[in-house]
Amino acid sequence: MIETHFLHRFFNPKSVAIIGASQNTSSVNHHLVNNLINIGYKGKIFPVNPNAESIFGIKAYNNVNEIQENIDLVVISIPARSVLEIIQNLPYEKIGGVALITGGFSEIGAEGKQIQDEIAKILKKNGIRAIGPNALSPINSRQNFIISFFNLKKLPVGNVSFIFQSGMYEPRFSWILSDFHLGISKLIDLGNKMDVTEVDALEYLSQDPETKVICMHLEAVKGNGRKFVEILKETTRRKPVIVLKGGRTEAGAQVAMSHTGSLAHGGNIVFDSVLKQTGAIRADTLDDFLYFAKAFSYLPILPRGNRIAIATFPGGEAVLTADLCSQNGLAMARPGQASYERLKRLFPPWEVPLNPFDFGIIYSFNASTNNYHIYIESMLDDENVDCLAVQLPPLTFPIKPDDFYPPFLKAKEKGKPIALWPPHMLKLDGDVIKYLEKNSVPVFPSAAITIKCLAALNNYRLYLADF
Amino acid sequence: MIETHFLHRFFNPKSVAIIGASQNTSSVNHHLVNNLINIGYKGKIFPVNPNAESIFGIKAYNNVNEIQENIDLVVISIPARSVLEIIQNLPYEKIGGVALITGGFSEIGAEGKQIQDEIAKILKKNGIRAIGPNALSPINSRQNFIISFFNLKKLPVGNVSFIFQSGMYEPRFSWILSDFHLGISKLIDLGNKMDVTEVDALEYLSQDPETKVICMHLEAVKGNGRKFVEILKETTRRKPVIVLKGGRTEAGAQVAMSHTGSLAHGGNIVFDSVLKQTGAIRADTLDDFLYFAKAFSYLPILPRGNRIAIATFPGGEAVLTADLCSQNGLAMARPGQASYERLKRLFPPWEVPLNPFDFGIIYSFNASTNNYHIYIESMLDDENVDCLAVQLPPLTFPIKPDDFYPPFLKAKEKGKPIALWPPHMLKLDGDVIKYLEKNSVPVFPSAAITIKCLAALNNYRLYLADF
Repeated sequence: MIETHFLHRFFNPKSVAIIGASQNTSSVNHHLVNNLINIGYKGKIFPVNPNAESIFGIKAYNNVNEIQENIDLVVISIPARSVLEIIQNLPYEKIGGVALITGGFSEIGAEGKQIQDEIAKILKKNGIRAIGPNALSPINSRQNFIISFFNLKKLPVGNVSFIFQSGMYEPRFSWILSDFHLGISKLIDLGNKMDVTEVDALEYLSQDPETKVICMHLEAVKGNGRKFVEILKETTRRKPVIVLKGGRTEAGAQVAMSHTGSLAHGGNIVFDSVLKQTGAIRADTLDDFLYFAKAFSYLPILPRGNRIAIATFPGGEAVLTADLCSQNGLAMARPGQASYERLKRLFPPWEVPLNPFDFGIIYSFNASTNNYHIYIESMLDDENVDCLAVQLPPLTFPIKPDDFYPPFLKAKEKGKPIALWPPHMLKLDGDVIKYLEKNSVPVFPSAAITIKCLAALNNYRLYLADF
Repeated sequence: MIETHFLHRFFNPKSVAIIGASQNTSSVNHHLVNNLINIGYKGKIFPVNPNAESIFGIKAYNNVNEIQENIDLVVISIPARSVLEIIQNLPYEKIGGVALITGGFSEIGAEGKQIQDEIAKILKKNGIRAIGPNALSPINSRQNFIISFFNLKKLPVGNVSFIFQSGMYEPRFSWILSDFHLGISKLIDLGNKMDVTEVDALEYLSQDPETKVICMHLEAVKGNGRKFVEILKETTRRKPVIVLKGGRTEAGAQVAMSHTGSLAHGGNIVFDSVLKQTGAIRADTLDDFLYFAKAFSYLPILPRGNRIAIATFPGGEAVLTADLCSQNGLAMARPGQASYERLKRLFPPWEVPLNPFDFGIIYSFNASTNNYHIYIESMLDDENVDCLAVQLPPLTFPIKPDDFYPPFLKAKEKGKPIALWPPHMLKLDGDVIKYLEKNSVPVFPSAAITIKCLAALNNYRLYLADF
C-alpha cells in the first residue's frame, strides 16, 4: 500500500505552499511557482511572500499561517538565517510535510549543524517529516509537480526515478528530459539528510508501481548502513537500482563534507563489495549513471544470455567492439545455419564472418538499402543470439526508412535487447534517432557506451539468476 | 629532410591517377574524383575508366599507360580480381607510388594472401612503394588532397595526423572535421600492410613539422616490433603519440584476422607494458582516442605540475570530479591567499572552499555575470594551480559574453591548460562552444572525459620529465 508511505504525500501533494515565492526574474525562486503553472500542476498553490500581493497571478500570503486550508507540502526557500523562525511558527496541524531547499546548514560547519539540529528537533516534536535542507525537490511527472530553480517547459512522463544526494541533475535536467529522451517518474534530493534519508526514498520508490528503474546518487549512507543494504537487496529483486557514489576517494570525500556535510569516508572498497552483494548496478561516472538509466528504462526485458551479435560500419570498429564485449563479460554469439543462409546473399565475392558483421564491406559490394533489415531480422530470429549492438550507417548514406526501421522495432517483441550507436559520437538529436528512441530503441554515443550498457543488463540478469 | 622520405610524395602528389574513377553516384568510387574537385586539389587528376570519356568534366583514360605524364600517386579502386593484371602492367618508370584501396586479399584467407604476395613482389621488383591493400587514404589537408569514399565539402587544416589500421574514421570523418572541431594535417591507412607499415608512417610523421600530434590506431605491429618501439620512443620525445590498439582480447584478435589479416594475438599485457616504456599515450576506446587527439591538439602547452583547480555548477558534481582527479593522478590545487582575497567577495554568507569552487552556491547568492571572469583570472594567476577544469553554466543561465570569454582566452598565454564541459553532455555544437573552440579552449562532453584528457597531458609531462 504505497499510499500509506509518508513520502506519498510529498510526491502527490494536493496543495503546496511556497515560502519565498517570487516573481522577480533575477531570483531563481521565481521558477518555483512559474514552473508549476507552466507545467500544469493541478493542485493548489499558495505563494508566501510578505512583499507581494500576488505571484504570477496567484494570490500571495504574508505568512503560511494565513492560509486557511490544509497544505500537503510546505516548500521553504528563504535565507538560512530566517528558516528557524519559520519552522518555529508553522501551523503544524494543517501541514503534511516540509521540503527545505535552503542551504547553509550542516555543510558549512558546527554553527550551521546546530541550527539544523534545532530545526530537526522541532519538526520531530510536531510529527512532521522533512526533506533536506540543502535539497531541491521533489518532482513527480505524473502530477506535473516540480520544484526546480531551472525553467522547465514540460515534464515527459517516464519510468525512471531518481534519488540524488543533492541537485546535481539541475543544470542538465532540461537537457535530460528533451534531447536525451529520458522520461522520469519521480525525483527526490536528500541534501543534508536532517530527516528523510536514502532508506526512506528507496523504500518508497521500491513500492512505487510507476517506478521501473531507480537511480541513486549518494555521498554517504546515513547511520550504520544495515537497513540500507537490506532495503537495497530487497529492491533489486524487483527492479534495477543504479548507484553512483560521490566521495569514493579521499579528495572527493573531503569535498562531500563541505557540500552536504556528508561523511563519505572514501571507503571505496568496502562500499563496492557491499554494493555488489545487493545486486545494485554501480555507475563509475555521472555519464554511466545516465546512460545506464536510459538502458534499463528503454530495455526492460533482460537478455536471456550473454551472447551478443555486433554489426558495425567500419571493420576496425568491429575489432574494438569485440574487445569491449570481451572486457565486459559478453560473449560473441555464433549465429546459426539459418542466419548464414539468409545473410550469404549479402556477402561480397568471398565468405565473411557473421559476427561481427561488417556493413562497410557489405555496402561497398551491395548497396541495397535493406541490408540492415535482413541482418537485424536474422539476428532476432537466431536462437544463438541474446542481444544486439548495431552501429547506424553514416547519416550521408542512402537508407530507405521503411527498410531500416521495422526490424529494430521487432526487437522488443522478440525479447532481445538491441542498442545502437551512430558513426559520429555526439549530436544524438537527429530525426532518425528521435524516431528510434520514440519507439524504445536506445541510441548511445559510441560503441564503448553501448556495450557497457548491454553488459550492465547482462550483469543484472546474472545477479537475478542466482535466486 | 622530410622531403627525402618516400612517403612525402604520397602525401604531396603533384599528380594522381585514379584507376576505377567513376561518376556514377551509386558507386562509392564517384567520391574519389568528386572530393578532389570539391575540396580544391591543385595537382593533376587522371581518372582511369575504359567506359568513360570524362569523369566530372575531367578527361578520362582507358588505362594508366595512356597517360603521357609522370604520376606521383596511382590510386587503385577496382575489384580484387582485376588488380593483379593492373599491377603487372603499370608504367613503372613514370609513377611514384601506389595506394591500393581494394579489399579482398590477405584478410579473406590463403588465396587472397597469395595474390597479395604476388602483387607485393612485382611492386618491389619495380622499386615502387605501396599503401594497402584494403586501405583508404592518404589525406593531406594542406594540399587539399583526399582519398575518401565519403562526401566531404571541406578539409580544415590542423595539426593532428592519423595513422589508421583501416578506414575506421571514414563514416565519422566529416563529423570529426565539422562538429567535433578537430583540424587534421595528414591521414594514412595501413590496411593489410603488404608494404608500408606503421614504422614507415611513424617515421614520416615524426619528422613532419606540420604534425604536432600523432594518433595511431593499430591491430598488430608488423615484424618483431623492435623497430616500432625504437621509432615510437624517439617520436614521443618530440610530440605526443596516442595509440589505440584493436584486438586486445582473444575475441577482438580473431576479428582483426578477418578484418585486415592482422595477427593481433590479444597480447594485451605485453603490448601495454611496452607501450608505457615508449611514452605513448594509450587510449582504451575510440572515444578516448578522439578526445585525447583534441586535448593534445588544443592544449600544446603541458601543465607544469599535477595541481588542478575545479569549478562546477552543482556541488555534487564537484565531489565526483574530485574523485575523478584523484583516480587519474591529479591533485587538488590549494589556491593561495591572493586567490582567497579575490574570490571572497563572491562568497555566500559563509566561507566556502576555493577548490572545487561551487558556482551553484555562488550564483544563488550573487548572480553577477562576471563570477566566471573573476574565478578564472584568479586561478590563472595563482602559482599553486597548474591546470583548470571548469564546467560551463547552463545554457539558460544569463552570461554576458564579454565577461565570460576573455579570461578563458588568457589561459594559453599563462601556460595553463584549461578544459571545459557543459552541464548537458552532448550537443557540443552551440555558439558558445564554437566560439571557445575557435579560440583553442576545448569543450568536452563531461567531467569524466575532461579529467581524463587533462590527466593524459599530465602523464605525458611526467614521462618527458624523466629525461
